[in-house]
Amino acid sequence: MPEAQPSIEGVRGFRAAGVQSGIKKSGALDFALIVSDRPCSASGVFTTSYVKAAPVLVDMEHLSLRAGSIRAVVTNSGCANACTGQQGMDNARQMARLTADKIDCAEQDVLVLSTGVIGVQLPMDKIERGINLALDTPEDDWFAAARAIMTTDTRPKMASVTVTTSSGQSYRIAGICKGAGMIAPNMATMLSVVVTDAQLTPEQTRSALKAAAKISYNCIVVDGDTSTNDTVFLLANGASGAAPQSETDLAQFQEALDTVCTKLAQDVVRDGEGVTKFITVRVEGAPDDAAARQIANTVAISPLVKTAFYGNDANWGRILMAAGRAGVPFDQNRVSLWFAPGEAFEEPLQLVADGMPLNYSETQATAIISQPSVGILLNCGAGAGAATVWTCDFSHEYVSINADYRT
Amino acid sequence: MPEAQPSIEGVRGFRAAGVQSGIKKSGALDFALIVSDRPCSASGVFTTSYVKAAPVLVDMEHLSLRAGSIRAVVTNSGCANACTGQQGMDNARQMARLTADKIDCAEQDVLVLSTGVIGVQLPMDKIERGINLALDTPEDDWFAAARAIMTTDTRPKMASVTVTTSSGQSYRIAGICKGAGMIAPNMATMLSVVVTDAQLTPEQTRSALKAAAKISYNCIVVDGDTSTNDTVFLLANGASGAAPQSETDLAQFQEALDTVCTKLAQDVVRDGEGVTKFITVRVEGAPDDAAARQIANTVAISPLVKTAFYGNDANWGRILMAAGRAGVPFDQNRVSLWFAPGEAFEEPLQLVADGMPLNYSETQATAIISQPSVGILLNCGAGAGAATVWTCDFSHEYVSINADYRT
Repeated sequence: MPEAQPSIEGVRGFRAAGVQSGIKKSGALDFALIVSDRPCSASGVFTTSYVKAAPVLVDMEHLSLRAGSIRAVVTNSGCANACTGQQGMDNARQMARLTADKIDCAEQDVLVLSTGVIGVQLPMDKIERGINLALDTPEDDWFAAARAIMTTDTRPKMASVTVTTSSGQSYRIAGICKGAGMIAPNMATMLSVVVTDAQLTPEQTRSALKAAAKISYNCIVVDGDTSTNDTVFLLANGASGAAPQSETDLAQFQEALDTVCTKLAQDVVRDGEGVTKFITVRVEGAPDDAAARQIANTVAISPLVKTAFYGNDANWGRILMAAGRAGVPFDQNRVSLWFAPGEAFEEPLQLVADGMPLNYSETQATAIISQPSVGILLNCGAGAGAATVWTCDFSHEYVSINADYRT
Repeated sequence: MPEAQPSIEGVRGFRAAGVQSGIKKSGALDFALIVSDRPCSASGVFTTSYVKAAPVLVDMEHLSLRAGSIRAVVTNSGCANACTGQQGMDNARQMARLTADKIDCAEQDVLVLSTGVIGVQLPMDKIERGINLALDTPEDDWFAAARAIMTTDTRPKMASVTVTTSSGQSYRIAGICKGAGMIAPNMATMLSVVVTDAQLTPEQTRSALKAAAKISYNCIVVDGDTSTNDTVFLLANGASGAAPQSETDLAQFQEALDTVCTKLAQDVVRDGEGVTKFITVRVEGAPDDAAARQIANTVAISPLVKTAFYGNDANWGRILMAAGRAGVPFDQNRVSLWFAPGEAFEEPLQLVADGMPLNYSETQATAIISQPSVGILLNCGAGAGAATVWTCDFSHEYVSINADYRT
């Protein structure tokens, strides 16, 4: 499998646009439209929050009715359309209807996404302007679309791969993504739209997206909070003519989708609010994989672990502290811990064995965790369970960003 | 019940001292000793972490053997004696033995507490010096003891009440406490020693302390992390001659103990690392009390809620976001939310009804949350469950303190 490219050259049958509708006072791009020239098989993974934004509720409905005929995803940033009651639901539906009228499909064939401030109604005049401007844009511009869905993101997030099947057919998978704060594991996080010109059934997009989300979007942490609007879509329009239907071809599709989703998810952490450091938390030796994941998540969320990394302080005691509070029983006297530069755990430095510090070099430990990318490997000595979670450090800048968000 | 006093005038039969043993390089007080002139009924509540410091393990053992004859609590700050293996266990036992030898009791009659950096062995020469210095101190000095157990705390935490029973007997309950970071709900947090000269059985101290911890120490959040060393003790030596044994007298004792523990627990939040604001989170209308507590905790831990309060930003959407991710089902269209100055929820301002913002005054909302003490009242409209949790905001200073802790 080739690496995911950080750009999108175009996916047959899809067109993307990003425009300035006026929702964001800053004048930044704030409106994106992705349209397929033919019906798509589609699926979504949504926030598990009990406070769900109107677009999430509308999309769940549309996908339950029309998972084989989705035509477009219309997105605004600057307003989340969450905690907006019946009017918010009406507005989300109208956003779909206005788009549907223009591209000549049913309202239920359009999916809607919103992100931004909670508790404010969508300015429907600007939404309508956005739709018109986006449809009038002649270029297929994924870069503009990726920029238009950003909120506190500092850069657009894109990924794509081109796949050649065993029978020599070729298709592409491409995705865009936004997210920098309100990021927590164990559920779909952020907004992401992934499209492919391969031909798949709605059920194939569902199972593939669920599997990919589990090892990508659901393995990242910025701050442990979960958005009301989290959504990931996969749309497959078949425009390439390639139809990966054999077991081998479907496995290849899954691998390619995993690659794109993992790249996008990691990009969210790399662009996490106030991030100075990308941290790969690997837990091994847990009672089972779910327990390993629970420990890795707890380490990844811990403010004390994250501030220590921000301070380039190899304070490994906080990692054991966080692991201990994860609710997973293990014998603290069998725990080992390594730090390593980068993500691949090459040249690891062991700091702890049998639950106690070794006589390691503090200078060497500090040198490792001062890198922009650091790995933590924790072995609990309690089984064969393993998991990897990606997180970032916790900086002054995170506080600044979130103390002043609405002002 | 009178209010708890923020000072301790003395509790009959107990003596407290705080001295400088040299463990802290800064030269600050770092060693405290509390001795009873007679055996105490005693109980403890401990961290639920699977990574427990040596003193926690030793104290659990001592209390299981000698809950009716405890004589002293010996405490050091500057070193947590956590993740220190067999040598750490040996050192914790020796700390008890050295004290026991001096006050002429069994090793198991002494409880030990340590707080500070994880993964460093106790300097036993300094521990011994501390014991000698503390026993040589002529004054009964609770203020010095409270200062000597501080780490990132900016001020000592003390509380006391004097109680007169129905039969006219009088006794006192007094406690000291440390804690400012690594504070999470739902378990015993921080270090605290509470003593009384009332006469109680070990079982009575156990049930009273458990009940008090549930509504005090277990209802506070600073950062959501849980220490390896969290411990709360209650020691009752009976030196006052007062023996609250009737149902009324025991209820009165419980109320007095709750008052002292709540004051100490709230003091931890008021002195939370980097705190600028004390926040009372009250959840009502949840399916049951446990569900209310779960929602209140999730709001209290949320970095996005806490940074918004730091920024004096009445961004109530984040409170609903956090409530939604607590794992408790409720209908988002039945949620109401109020802000109020202070802790008593007098003069509340309603911001949300039926899950949507009211036309409230943003100026008024900002004025309320700019107070040093703010109340959040969330009604989920889903039942009769209620809970209150105390937390603080999340500031640049929290990051600074924890990025530079060991340097």
